[in-house]
Amino acid sequence: MLVVMRHDSTPAEVEAVCERITSLGLTARPMPGGERVAVGVLGNHGPVDPARFHGMPGVAEAIPVSAPYKQVSREWRHDQTLIRLDNGVTIGGPEVVVMGGPCAVESEDQLMRTAERVREAGGTVLRGGAFKPRTSPYAFQGLGLEGLKLLAKARERTGLAVITEAIDEESARMVADHADIVQLGARNMQNYALLKVVGTLGRPVMLKRGLSATISEWLLAAEYLLDAGLHDVMLCERGIRSFDAATRNVLDVGAIALARNLTHLPVVADPSHATGRRELVAPAARAAVAAGADAVIVETHPEPAKALSDGQQALLPDDFATMVRQLRAIAASIDRPLATLP
Amino acid sequence: MLVVMRHDSTPAEVEAVCERITSLGLTARPMPGGERVAVGVLGNHGPVDPARFHGMPGVAEAIPVSAPYKQVSREWRHDQTLIRLDNGVTIGGPEVVVMGGPCAVESEDQLMRTAERVREAGGTVLRGGAFKPRTSPYAFQGLGLEGLKLLAKARERTGLAVITEAIDEESARMVADHADIVQLGARNMQNYALLKVVGTLGRPVMLKRGLSATISEWLLAAEYLLDAGLHDVMLCERGIRSFDAATRNVLDVGAIALARNLTHLPVVADPSHATGRRELVAPAARAAVAAGADAVIVETHPEPAKALSDGQQALLPDDFATMVRQLRAIAASIDRPLATLP
Amino acid sequence: MLVVMRHDSTPAEVEAVCERITSLGLTARPMPGGERVAVGVLGNHGPVDPARFHGMPGVAEAIPVSAPYKQVSREWRHDQTLIRLDNGVTIGGPEVVVMGGPCAVESEDQLMRTAERVREAGGTVLRGGAFKPRTSPYAFQGLGLEGLKLLAKARERTGLAVITEAIDEESARMVADHADIVQLGARNMQNYALLKVVGTLGRPVMLKRGLSATISEWLLAAEYLLDAGLHDVMLCERGIRSFDAATRNVLDVGAIALARNLTHLPVVADPSHATGRRELVAPAARAAVAAGADAVIVETHPEPAKALSDGQQALLPDDFATMVRQLRAIAASIDRPLATLP
Amino acid sequence: MLVVMRHDSTPAEVEAVCERITSLGLTARPMPGGERVAVGVLGNHGPVDPARFHGMPGVAEAIPVSAPYKQVSREWRHDQTLIRLDNGVTIGGPEVVVMGGPCAVESEDQLMRTAERVREAGGTVLRGGAFKPRTSPYAFQGLGLEGLKLLAKARERTGLAVITEAIDEESARMVADHADIVQLGARNMQNYALLKVVGTLGRPVMLKRGLSATISEWLLAAEYLLDAGLHDVMLCERGIRSFDAATRNVLDVGAIALARNLTHLPVVADPSHATGRRELVAPAARAAVAAGADAVIVETHPEPAKALSDGQQALLPDDFATMVRQLRAIAASIDRPLATLP
Repeated sequence: MLVVMRHDSTPAEVEAVCERITSLGLTARPMPGGERVAVGVLGNHGPVDPARFHGMPGVAEAIPVSAPYKQVSREWRHDQTLIRLDNGVTIGGPEVVVMGGPCAVESEDQLMRTAERVREAGGTVLRGGAFKPRTSPYAFQGLGLEGLKLLAKARERTGLAVITEAIDEESARMVADHADIVQLGARNMQNYALLKVVGTLGRPVMLKRGLSATISEWLLAAEYLLDAGLHDVMLCERGIRSFDAATRNVLDVGAIALARNLTHLPVVADPSHATGRRELVAPAARAAVAAGADAVIVETHPEPAKALSDGQQALLPDDFATMVRQLRAIAASIDRPLATLP
Repeated sequence: MLVVMRHDSTPAEVEAVCERITSLGLTARPMPGGERVAVGVLGNHGPVDPARFHGMPGVAEAIPVSAPYKQVSREWRHDQTLIRLDNGVTIGGPEVVVMGGPCAVESEDQLMRTAERVREAGGTVLRGGAFKPRTSPYAFQGLGLEGLKLLAKARERTGLAVITEAIDEESARMVADHADIVQLGARNMQNYALLKVVGTLGRPVMLKRGLSATISEWLLAAEYLLDAGLHDVMLCERGIRSFDAATRNVLDVGAIALARNLTHLPVVADPSHATGRRELVAPAARAAVAAGADAVIVETHPEPAKALSDGQQALLPDDFATMVRQLRAIAASIDRPLATLP
Repeated sequence: MLVVMRHDSTPAEVEAVCERITSLGLTARPMPGGERVAVGVLGNHGPVDPARFHGMPGVAEAIPVSAPYKQVSREWRHDQTLIRLDNGVTIGGPEVVVMGGPCAVESEDQLMRTAERVREAGGTVLRGGAFKPRTSPYAFQGLGLEGLKLLAKARERTGLAVITEAIDEESARMVADHADIVQLGARNMQNYALLKVVGTLGRPVMLKRGLSATISEWLLAAEYLLDAGLHDVMLCERGIRSFDAATRNVLDVGAIALARNLTHLPVVADPSHATGRRELVAPAARAAVAAGADAVIVETHPEPAKALSDGQQALLPDDFATMVRQLRAIAASIDRPLATLP
Repeated sequence: MLVVMRHDSTPAEVEAVCERITSLGLTARPMPGGERVAVGVLGNHGPVDPARFHGMPGVAEAIPVSAPYKQVSREWRHDQTLIRLDNGVTIGGPEVVVMGGPCAVESEDQLMRTAERVREAGGTVLRGGAFKPRTSPYAFQGLGLEGLKLLAKARERTGLAVITEAIDEESARMVADHADIVQLGARNMQNYALLKVVGTLGRPVMLKRGLSATISEWLLAAEYLLDAGLHDVMLCERGIRSFDAATRNVLDVGAIALARNLTHLPVVADPSHATGRRELVAPAARAAVAAGADAVIVETHPEPAKALSDGQQALLPDDFATMVRQLRAIAASIDRPLATLP
């Protein structure tokens, strides 16, 4: 923490700030400058609340210096987190992982047809929502447990690992029982009660970035999971909200690259939700891998026009296969292979 | 729904769109224009998914025409929702309600001192968090049930009604047992699992707008509560996220005025979280009442510098009292009195 | 400037940073902390470029401490700027000023009818665009010099002062010749070439905040005007761009209050462009005055449905008059009168 | 235009809307639906102002159907725009073009050293600012005409084409005389006076997207250039402003892909300004090419720590060369070669 004084602050005001710092059990180090004095705060073992100094006479600003997260930070742990799935695929290592599947599990036939095509195309993880958080209460809310059972069946049949979303404690326990990865959605990124529960279930978690969450808030949400004892956490950039509704969201490729620098956790990208328009999905998926994403998760549906949710962003299976071929070449350009099933 | 064709679309492409509409059990009405054809979709009793038409040859756009919400809409229900609290105060009527209290309940002494000052200043509802959703897992998380009991005690002593936040199903049931109003926070606005539960508890709910939720999404979240059977729902504008970190958030006064036009639900404003800086709270509170807010909820603390959370935005009790006096004059300028305890 | 080192930085890396600082003619002051070292930079008389330190081994961040503006800052000049217009009205003092008029000057009849109604209602400054920056090249671009002459005529007839927009050097010289205040639009806020010219013309300037300009960037743009020799500068908050298109923009009432704290320049609000919807203009105007705006500038048109631009946000003259009555009461609630013509 | 009536609108209100449409010389087509009536507006040859209908009794919304731009639209002109530079390089065709150079021209030595390295690495266009629009009036403002002469000299020596920014009419004429491409910066995207001038100079123009410009506004700004007679226009996505200051801006890769669908103009990406941090530039450049950008423009400087502006985002020449190698592989993955000098 650095407390910056106004240029016209008095020595007594600086002194009062130093006393406040001392009263918190910390050490004050005044730094007289050309224009103004700043007072360094030393000895803290975690963030100090700037509110302690705001509004004190003569104080212009209180600037935090420490990053607020620690366990997720590459500064504190250099080793990359590797998440090894039961089907032999590892997320976070040199291999780039392709996850694919429908937005929602709708029926056995729909899911099995999609899963077969995902595997044929070169995907190694199957996605599909059984519990759907929907903006409108009148929209399709998912098949629930029945959907989870269909996903488990598809895994058995294809060898794909399974990722699916949990939306509350009850569904989280069910998902942890049936799937390889628990997905936490953007709207639940700061549902701390849920994070605390999911952090104890022992299943790998993919934590989506909130629609307007800063990178720091995203990492702090992941910190909740690690703090609850979970290590196998991956982040997912799924597009942030902007001022322009021409695309559903904006894929933040800079955040993918930055998150990989800041944290040892694998970073996944979701180009389907990031763009919301079928014709933009493959370009965005390519961009994500080019920027360094460890995995992409992409929606595909055999008949998008009949999909019960988000059909406008689902790729046709043939287009999904074309995209995977392009991703393989792009990954190669930065010396990464695509993950394959053994 | 209006399906807009490209200007160079062919009659066969228009025909295919009409057939798709008919196959959904709806009626197609083509409208040839100067530059292009548009096809109206008639006969739907709820929103039609634009995905049904995106990507069809010749289609430029599919534009929804119906608003996606219904029960919260003033278009469908003209009567204003009035929420009558046990202490005689009504939210949503001509009277403007002032809610005040600390960010978090910290101790009996802190809460009682604050409650007394809120009542003396002219407030009629006491706020105070017992369950705190915090960005960092290392921050103070609230006193929990003990906090609720202190709030109930303060109500007994002062006659103030009590509002406090619930963060999951378990805390929601406890809050509904101890408080007059259940607060749902911005980060939980789209926690649909929680909305469905809270909508059945029978307690009035104040639903905060998400940090980057559109007005339409906010109303749809409220629609979840009404759809679950609850009528006593109020909305709370608490500042939206912008590109400028100079203030914590931006109080959207236009949204306050617009929400009052679109919906029959009362609209509350939270100038404390909207600004995040003590010196801006009173101006923002005045602005909210001037724009038509039915209530304001404002943080005040006897010793902000010692507050366990958000001290930098808490008003001193004297400043809170000054603010209430100004709000009374502003409300009068648009012919509204402040609510008072009987 | 504070250079924050990584917690695992080496003494040699800290030393290299100190040497870089010294090589810039500045003084380095290392501050060893509990977790990491930070190095203060002293002796600078203006902002130091953080790029000097980014990317050096062991450096985590370089945090600017000085505010980048100076002449506009209340920290460096305590006296409030008062802008005295020829018609006797002062902007920036205790009186709140109401400016009104059409979006664009369309004809003598339209302008004179509007000006009369603005004066009757209690306005003291007439607005009206003669040079219109339009998003589309096919939209009405204004009457140009003829419009300026009509504005001057209206001033003569009514006693209202005149404010109108300049869009380039040529129009700026014409506006300075014919009007009392030169308006610079949001899209030109960072048109530095224009700022440098307008700063030399000697006419008071109203500088609108850019659609997504931070408060700091807005003040720096004003700094260009002061640096060019102009003192009579007022700022205008006209709504910022958000993620929600339900309202055209979002009136940033917190920015109004904060700008008044940070700078000695008067702050005006434009509720018409901030909301873009007629029914929201009066609530937003009230909010602006309640938050402390020194003036409001509001569009009104005798026949909005026939307006050549922005008719959807123009108040009818009667509604304008009602709004002024409300503003008078709101200003009184914070001990400010409305300005009147002598 | 579609005028959507409230569900409780009366036949007389619908009739009044039809009359308003007819009075504008257009044709009204009422479409009675299940819940409400909508009225189509036919016969218009350009956008109709929604303000004509807002606020009429019974009207819920007026929804524009036509896109507001035309000459830039691929819907109206199918042929891709190809911009052929004098050095034999074409922008907008199958080849991907790499532009590189310093943020600002600082000296002959700096520029020549950089230009040589850009050419060696495989770049074909040299960038470098001679007129610098700077946020602060106290920052380095560029060498002006002297900088242009140095750029022309570097072109002569290296065979690179030259792109540099114009900031007002005067500099635009000088740039058009000395450079191959006139760059218009983000802050001037809606400086319509400047667009009108630059559109008549006959030099190819690169138009940067404004910091918070929608794709539609960006295309409309380009429409100004085409409307003034210029054909050789390219767009440049340079990052949009978001709520997170962790990166300077957010590279909108979806906008790159979408703009290429909507318009026949070439689309360039500027990963340097989009990220603002050296370590993110190459990942963002790769993402841009993967998403389909026709060119990238990247800052490189022989000694970034001594750069007079934006040093923190300049690549070292070796890193620039590595980036170009990666871009070549990525372009190949979507069947595009990099442009080379003949």
